[in-house]
This record gives sequence, structure tokens and C-alpha cells, in this order.
Amino acid sequence: MEKTEGLPLHPDVAHLEWLLGHWESKTLGQGTYPTIKSFHYHEQANFTHCGQPLLDYAFYAFHGDTGRPLHREVGFLRPRAGTDQIALIGAQNTGLSIVEEGEVRGKEITLTSHSVSRITFGKEPRVVKTKRILSLDQDGKLRQCFSMATSNQEMRPHLEITYCRKMP
Amino acid sequence: MEKTEGLPLHPDVAHLEWLLGHWESKTLGQGTYPTIKSFHYHEQANFTHCGQPLLDYAFYAFHGDTGRPLHREVGFLRPRAGTDQIALIGAQNTGLSIVEEGEVRGKEITLTSHSVSRITFGKEPRVVKTKRILSLDQDGKLRQCFSMATSNQEMRPHLEITYCRKMP
Repeated sequence: MEKTEGLPLHPDVAHLEWLLGHWESKTLGQGTYPTIKSFHYHEQANFTHCGQPLLDYAFYAFHGDTGRPLHREVGFLRPRAGTDQIALIGAQNTGLSIVEEGEVRGKEITLTSHSVSRITFGKEPRVVKTKRILSLDQDGKLRQCFSMATSNQEMRPHLEITYCRKMP
Repeated sequence: MEKTEGLPLHPDVAHLEWLLGHWESKTLGQGTYPTIKSFHYHEQANFTHCGQPLLDYAFYAFHGDTGRPLHREVGFLRPRAGTDQIALIGAQNTGLSIVEEGEVRGKEITLTSHSVSRITFGKEPRVVKTKRILSLDQDGKLRQCFSMATSNQEMRPHLEITYCRKMP
């Protein structure tokens, strides 16, 4: 009686159909930031739906060498019906909950945080602002570029990765 | 190379082992609130781990009659090592991102929001505070009681449901 697969795509997310599916990095993503040693990582990106006017999303990152799980982020992408406005509502295993908002333009989504909250016992420095772009390249690859500002750094690029669609 | 199953449970979440697994309601959950018509629902509750010092969680609710997906909430339960303190970092399909904090006492977790954020284009009234209790009954059933305050209601009970462990 309960099902979440095979339900028709809600018309309010028809313009996000290009995101749907399971993606994974074929080449390593790159992480940089002034306060840390640069690193490489794999990531899975999942965008699914269950007939609601939003997408469920998940980003699961893994260590580039060992495959050990690293960063995990889950949540929802929710467009504002009848507009190009869109919100990302997310939870991260680092202890952050975020709301980002922005626009869908063709096959590119740009998002900027308007709220970044976190657990009281997280480590310093704290993330205070986030920006990201999700875009589909002409060759069918999905790209994510993520920037952040922390309590001691201005907004700077942090993560860049390209995903290929994972075939069943 | 990338795997999230079969990894050993992190010692920091050993005291949460009773939560692990997939649960589903056998009897309907009850939703009440002064501003809405009372309703019944089914829910799946998933608590998993991938070797990190936290649990991944998801609550997926379905309409009691039609099985249509309703409320969806995903995120993480992250204890503060060496204490009974715990945080929930969550994203909800309604457009809310939350951080709740509280305590683990035996097989009961009590949580109160210290941050509730939401998309700018959500409907009124807005949720402004949340409380919940997750507890394991003596008969092995998991119970969740969820209360909330909104922009026009004081803190009141909203949801109550009991889950049975889903056998593989």
C-alpha cells in the first residue's frame, strides 16, 4: 500500500527531470580551503521523487583512497510553483542544517544559504554561509561547485566534482 | 571500494544500538493539532550507520488510507562523545531544517529544537519550536511522540506513533 517508486513526476518539478537518478563521480572531486590540506574524494549523488512537488536528494562522499565514508548530506529540493525560484533544505553529518535558496535557469541551479544552523558542540571554525551551483554539462555530466564562508574565512571555493549518471 | 554496510559500529553510538534497523508502524499513527483536522498515518523509520560516530535517520509517513507519501524527514543523530548529550540534525519536505538537542537516558531520547529554519515561501503558520521523545517500550516497540509550537499556537502534542521492527 505504501510506495514511493513508479509514481508520476509532479508537474512542479518537471523542469528538474534532468537531475533525477543516481550519479557517481568517475574522476576524483577536489576539496580545497585555506585552513585545511587539499583532498580528493568520491561522491554519490541521488535525486529521487515520490510524486510530491519536490525532489529528495543525497550526497554521500567517500575518501579518495580508502573508500571510507566522509561527508554526508541529505534533504530536499523544493521549487516555488510557477517561478524559477528553488529552495534546498538540507542536513549534514557535520552537524549543520541549512536552507539555501536560488534559481533554476535551464539545466543550472544556483543556491545561496539564507540559514545555516548547527549543533552546539561542533568544532570551530563554523560554516556561516554556503553557495553552490549544480549544472548539467553538454556531455551529460552533472557538476557541483560548492563554496563557503566560515567564522574565520570569507566566501571561497571549497568543493568541485563531476558526476556521471549511474546506469542500472 | 565505497561501502556503507557491514562497517563496525562506532563506539560513540554503541548506546544507540537499540535504534538501529528499519521500523514500520503496524497500527496507525495519530496526528492532532488545534488548527487542523485530526488524521491517521503510517510511517517507516530507518536508523542506519556507516561506521561514523552518528546515525543516519529517516522518517517517511504515508496516508493511512491511500498509502500516498506525506511527511518526509531525513538527517542524522549525533551524540556528544563521552556524555549523554545528543543532537538531531534534520531536513523536512515541508521546508524546515532543524537542529534539536537533548539527552539519551537508557532507551529513551528526548530532544528540543534550538534552531528551526525554513524556506522563505512556506505557508503560514510556521513551526517555531519542536520537541520529541523516541523510546523503546519493554515489548520492543519503538515510540515517537512529537510536539510543536507554531507562530500561532503554544507547544502542543502533534504526532504519536509506534513502530515495530521490520524483519528482513
